[in-house]
Amino acid sequence: MHPKLSIPALLSGINQPYTPQLVSTVNNEYDIKIARTSGPFIWHAHPETDEFFYILSGTLTIQLEREGKIEDVVLEKGELFVVPMGMRHRPMGDAEIMMIERCGVVNTGDAGVSAMTKRVEDVRGDK
Amino acid sequence: MHPKLSIPALLSGINQPYTPQLVSTVNNEYDIKIARTSGPFIWHAHPETDEFFYILSGTLTIQLEREGKIEDVVLEKGELFVVPMGMRHRPMGDAEIMMIERCGVVNTGDAGVSAMTKRVEDVRGDK
Repeated sequence: MHPKLSIPALLSGINQPYTPQLVSTVNNEYDIKIARTSGPFIWHAHPETDEFFYILSGTLTIQLEREGKIEDVVLEKGELFVVPMGMRHRPMGDAEIMMIERCGVVNTGDAGVSAMTKRVEDVRGDK
Repeated sequence: MHPKLSIPALLSGINQPYTPQLVSTVNNEYDIKIARTSGPFIWHAHPETDEFFYILSGTLTIQLEREGKIEDVVLEKGELFVVPMGMRHRPMGDAEIMMIERCGVVNTGDAGVSAMTKRVEDVRGDK
Protein backbone atom coordinates (compact mmCIF):
# COMPACT_ATOMS: atom_id res chain seq x y z
CA MET A 1 0.00 0.00 0.00
CA HIS A 2 1.46 3.34 -1.01
CA PRO A 3 1.18 6.37 1.29
CA LYS A 4 -1.16 9.23 0.42
CA LEU A 5 0.34 11.94 -1.75
CA SER A 6 -0.31 15.67 -2.15
CA ILE A 7 -0.60 16.71 -5.79
CA PRO A 8 0.00 20.44 -5.08
CA ALA A 9 3.15 19.59 -3.11
CA LEU A 10 4.46 17.40 -5.94
CA LEU A 11 3.66 19.99 -8.60
CA SER A 12 5.56 22.66 -6.71
CA GLY A 13 8.66 20.51 -7.08
CA ILE A 14 8.37 20.10 -10.87
CA ASN A 15 10.49 22.64 -12.71
CA GLN A 16 10.54 21.29 -16.24
CA PRO A 17 7.47 21.11 -18.49
CA TYR A 18 6.40 17.82 -20.03
CA THR A 19 8.26 15.67 -17.50
CA PRO A 20 5.51 13.37 -16.17
CA GLN A 21 5.52 11.99 -12.63
CA LEU A 22 3.82 8.71 -11.78
CA VAL A 23 1.67 9.37 -8.70
CA SER A 24 -0.49 6.26 -8.66
CA THR A 25 -1.19 2.93 -10.34
CA VAL A 26 -4.50 1.07 -10.26
CA ASN A 27 -4.36 -2.74 -10.45
CA ASN A 28 -0.98 -2.50 -12.21
CA GLU A 29 -3.01 -1.69 -15.32
CA TYR A 30 -3.53 2.07 -15.34
CA ASP A 31 -1.18 4.90 -14.43
CA ILE A 32 -2.14 8.24 -12.98
CA LYS A 33 0.46 10.88 -13.83
CA ILE A 34 0.87 14.59 -13.31
CA ALA A 35 2.83 17.10 -15.36
CA ARG A 36 3.41 20.75 -15.92
CA THR A 37 3.01 21.97 -19.51
CA SER A 38 4.44 25.04 -21.22
CA GLY A 39 4.00 25.95 -24.85
CA PRO A 40 3.44 23.32 -27.52
CA PHE A 41 4.19 19.61 -27.18
CA ILE A 42 4.62 17.55 -30.36
CA TRP A 43 2.03 15.88 -32.58
CA HIS A 44 1.60 12.22 -31.69
CA ALA A 45 -0.94 9.46 -31.08
CA HIS A 46 -1.20 6.54 -28.69
CA PRO A 47 -2.29 3.55 -30.79
CA GLU A 48 -2.81 1.43 -27.66
CA THR A 49 -4.80 3.66 -25.31
CA ASP A 50 -7.26 6.45 -24.71
CA GLU A 51 -5.66 9.33 -22.80
CA PHE A 52 -7.57 11.15 -20.05
CA PHE A 53 -6.67 14.75 -19.22
CA TYR A 54 -7.81 16.71 -16.15
CA ILE A 55 -6.73 20.33 -15.69
CA LEU A 56 -5.45 21.18 -12.21
CA SER A 57 -4.53 24.78 -13.07
CA GLY A 58 -4.02 26.96 -16.12
CA THR A 59 -5.31 26.42 -19.63
CA LEU A 60 -4.43 23.49 -21.89
CA THR A 61 -5.41 23.46 -25.54
CA ILE A 62 -5.43 20.02 -27.12
CA GLN A 63 -5.28 20.15 -30.89
CA LEU A 64 -6.88 17.12 -32.52
CA GLU A 65 -6.56 15.84 -36.08
CA ARG A 66 -10.03 14.65 -37.11
CA GLU A 67 -10.96 13.75 -40.65
CA GLY A 68 -8.10 15.79 -42.03
CA LYS A 69 -8.90 18.93 -40.06
CA ILE A 70 -7.41 20.47 -36.94
CA GLU A 71 -9.82 20.99 -34.06
CA ASP A 72 -8.97 22.77 -30.79
CA VAL A 73 -10.30 21.60 -27.43
CA VAL A 74 -9.61 24.36 -24.91
CA LEU A 75 -9.55 23.09 -21.34
CA GLU A 76 -9.65 25.29 -18.24
CA LYS A 77 -9.07 24.39 -14.60
CA GLY A 78 -11.52 21.70 -13.47
CA GLU A 79 -12.25 20.44 -16.98
CA LEU A 80 -11.57 16.96 -18.34
CA PHE A 81 -11.32 15.41 -21.78
CA VAL A 82 -10.40 12.03 -23.22
CA VAL A 83 -8.35 11.82 -26.41
CA PRO A 84 -9.55 8.62 -28.11
CA MET A 85 -7.09 5.81 -28.78
CA GLY A 86 -5.14 6.40 -31.98
CA MET A 87 -6.19 10.03 -32.49
CA ARG A 88 -3.32 12.36 -33.38
CA HIS A 89 -3.15 15.26 -30.96
CA ARG A 90 -0.89 18.02 -29.67
CA PRO A 91 -1.24 19.55 -26.20
CA MET A 92 -0.16 23.15 -25.84
CA GLY A 93 -0.34 25.92 -23.24
CA ASP A 94 0.68 26.56 -19.66
CA ALA A 95 -1.08 24.23 -17.26
CA GLU A 96 -0.78 21.64 -14.52
CA ILE A 97 -2.49 18.42 -15.53
CA MET A 98 -3.43 14.92 -14.38
CA MET A 99 -3.43 12.09 -16.92
CA ILE A 100 -4.78 8.55 -16.86
CA GLU A 101 -3.67 5.94 -19.35
CA ARG A 102 -2.61 2.33 -19.68
CA CYS A 103 0.60 1.45 -17.81
CA GLY A 104 3.83 1.97 -19.66
CA VAL A 105 2.66 4.53 -22.21
CA VAL A 106 5.44 6.75 -23.57
CA ASN A 107 4.63 10.46 -23.58
CA THR A 108 5.58 10.99 -27.22
CA GLY A 109 3.56 7.98 -28.40
CA ASP A 110 4.09 7.02 -32.03
CA ALA A 111 6.16 10.14 -32.79
CA GLY A 112 9.39 8.32 -32.00
CA VAL A 113 12.07 9.11 -29.46
CA SER A 114 13.13 12.77 -29.29
CA ALA A 115 14.22 15.39 -26.77
CA MET A 116 10.56 15.52 -25.70
CA THR A 117 10.52 11.83 -24.77
CA LYS A 118 10.82 11.53 -20.99
CA ARG A 119 11.06 8.58 -18.66
CA VAL A 120 8.24 8.79 -16.12
CA GLU A 121 9.52 9.48 -12.62
CA ASP A 122 7.88 7.21 -10.04
CA VAL A 123 7.07 9.33 -6.97
CA ARG A 124 4.58 6.95 -5.31
CA GLY A 125 6.77 6.33 -2.26
CA ASP A 126 7.34 3.17 -0.23
CA LYS A 127 4.88 0.38 -0.63
CA MET B 1 -15.57 11.12 -28.74
CA HIS B 2 -17.25 12.63 -25.71
CA PRO B 3 -17.28 16.42 -25.17
CA LYS B 4 -15.16 18.02 -22.49
CA LEU B 5 -16.79 18.29 -19.07
CA SER B 6 -16.43 20.67 -16.16
CA ILE B 7 -16.11 18.88 -12.82
CA PRO B 8 -17.03 21.97 -10.72
CA ALA B 9 -20.18 22.49 -12.82
CA LEU B 10 -21.20 18.86 -12.40
CA LEU B 11 -20.53 18.87 -8.67
CA SER B 12 -22.71 21.93 -8.19
CA GLY B 13 -25.62 19.88 -9.54
CA ILE B 14 -25.15 16.97 -7.13
CA ASN B 15 -27.40 17.29 -4.11
CA GLN B 16 -27.24 13.85 -2.56
CA PRO B 17 -24.11 12.40 -0.99
CA TYR B 18 -22.71 9.07 -2.18
CA THR B 19 -24.47 9.19 -5.56
CA PRO B 20 -21.59 8.71 -8.02
CA GLN B 21 -21.61 10.22 -11.50
CA LEU B 22 -19.66 8.65 -14.36
CA VAL B 23 -17.68 11.46 -16.00
CA SER B 24 -15.28 9.47 -18.16
CA THR B 25 -14.27 5.99 -19.28
CA VAL B 26 -10.83 5.01 -20.53
CA ASN B 27 -10.65 2.18 -23.09
CA ASN B 28 -13.98 0.83 -21.79
CA GLU B 29 -11.92 -0.63 -18.95
CA TYR B 30 -11.70 2.06 -16.26
CA ASP B 31 -14.28 4.50 -14.99
CA ILE B 32 -13.64 7.97 -13.62
CA LYS B 33 -16.42 9.00 -11.26
CA ILE B 34 -17.15 11.98 -9.04
CA ALA B 35 -19.24 12.14 -5.88
CA ARG B 36 -20.09 14.27 -2.93
CA THR B 37 -19.67 12.64 0.48
CA SER B 38 -21.29 13.47 3.81
CA GLY B 39 -20.82 11.61 7.04
CA PRO B 40 -19.96 7.91 7.12
CA PHE B 41 -20.42 5.48 4.24
CA ILE B 42 -20.57 1.76 5.02
CA TRP B 43 -17.78 -0.76 5.51
CA HIS B 44 -17.08 -2.69 2.31
CA ALA B 45 -14.37 -4.02 0.04
CA HIS B 46 -13.93 -4.38 -3.72
CA PRO B 47 -12.55 -7.88 -4.29
CA GLU B 48 -11.95 -7.13 -7.98
CA THR B 49 -10.24 -3.73 -8.02
CA ASP B 50 -8.02 -1.14 -6.40
CA GLU B 51 -9.91 2.11 -5.79
CA PHE B 52 -8.25 5.47 -6.40
CA PHE B 53 -9.46 8.54 -4.48
CA TYR B 54 -8.58 12.17 -5.24
CA ILE B 55 -9.96 14.96 -3.06
CA LEU B 56 -11.43 17.92 -4.97
CA SER B 57 -12.60 19.76 -1.86
CA GLY B 58 -13.20 19.13 1.83
CA THR B 59 -11.75 16.36 3.97
CA LEU B 60 -12.31 12.64 3.49
CA THR B 61 -11.20 10.14 6.08
CA ILE B 62 -10.85 6.59 4.79
CA GLN B 63 -10.89 4.02 7.55
CA LEU B 64 -9.00 0.86 6.65
CA GLU B 65 -9.09 -2.56 8.27
CA ARG B 66 -5.52 -3.83 8.27
CA GLU B 67 -4.40 -6.90 10.17
CA GLY B 68 -7.38 -6.67 12.48
CA LYS B 69 -6.87 -3.00 13.34
CA ILE B 70 -8.60 0.17 12.15
CA GLU B 71 -6.33 2.75 10.56
CA ASP B 72 -7.44 6.23 9.45
CA VAL B 73 -6.13 7.88 6.30
CA VAL B 74 -7.11 11.55 6.42
CA LEU B 75 -7.20 13.16 2.98
CA GLU B 76 -7.37 16.89 2.34
CA LYS B 77 -8.00 18.78 -0.89
CA GLY B 78 -5.38 17.87 -3.51
CA GLU B 79 -4.43 14.57 -1.87
CA LEU B 80 -4.79 11.10 -3.38
CA PHE B 81 -4.80 7.58 -2.03
CA VAL B 82 -5.39 4.10 -3.44
CA VAL B 83 -7.32 1.54 -1.37
CA PRO B 84 -5.81 -1.82 -2.38
CA MET B 85 -8.02 -4.48 -3.97
CA GLY B 86 -9.90 -6.47 -1.35
CA MET B 87 -9.11 -4.19 1.61
CA ARG B 88 -12.14 -3.40 3.79
CA HIS B 89 -12.62 0.34 4.11
CA ARG B 90 -15.13 3.02 5.04
CA PRO B 91 -15.02 6.56 3.67
CA MET B 92 -16.38 9.28 5.92
CA GLY B 93 -16.54 13.07 6.03
CA ASP B 94 -17.73 15.96 3.89
CA ALA B 95 -15.87 16.15 0.61
CA GLU B 96 -16.04 16.22 -3.16
CA ILE B 97 -14.04 13.38 -4.66
CA MET B 98 -12.86 11.79 -7.90
CA MET B 99 -12.55 8.00 -8.09
CA ILE B 100 -10.92 5.66 -10.58
CA GLU B 101 -11.74 1.97 -10.68
CA ARG B 102 -12.49 -0.90 -13.03
CA CYS B 103 -15.67 -0.46 -15.07
CA GLY B 104 -18.88 -1.66 -13.51
CA VAL B 105 -17.83 -1.54 -9.85
CA VAL B 106 -20.74 -1.16 -7.42
CA ASN B 107 -20.23 1.51 -4.77
CA THR B 108 -21.10 -0.75 -1.84
CA GLY B 109 -18.80 -3.53 -3.08
CA ASP B 110 -19.13 -6.82 -1.19
CA ALA B 111 -21.43 -5.33 1.48
CA GLY B 112 -24.51 -6.31 -0.49
CA VAL B 113 -27.33 -4.19 -1.79
CA SER B 114 -28.69 -1.56 0.62
CA ALA B 115 -30.08 1.96 0.64
CA MET B 116 -26.47 3.11 0.10
CA THR B 117 -26.18 1.18 -3.16
CA LYS B 118 -26.57 3.59 -6.07
CA ARG B 119 -26.63 3.13 -9.80
CA VAL B 120 -23.94 5.30 -11.36
CA GLU B 121 -25.39 8.13 -13.42
CA ASP B 122 -23.65 8.49 -16.78
CA VAL B 123 -23.11 12.22 -17.44
CA ARG B 124 -20.51 11.92 -20.20
CA GLY B 125 -22.74 13.44 -22.86
CA ASP B 126 -23.12 12.61 -26.54
CA LYS B 127 -20.42 10.55 -28.14
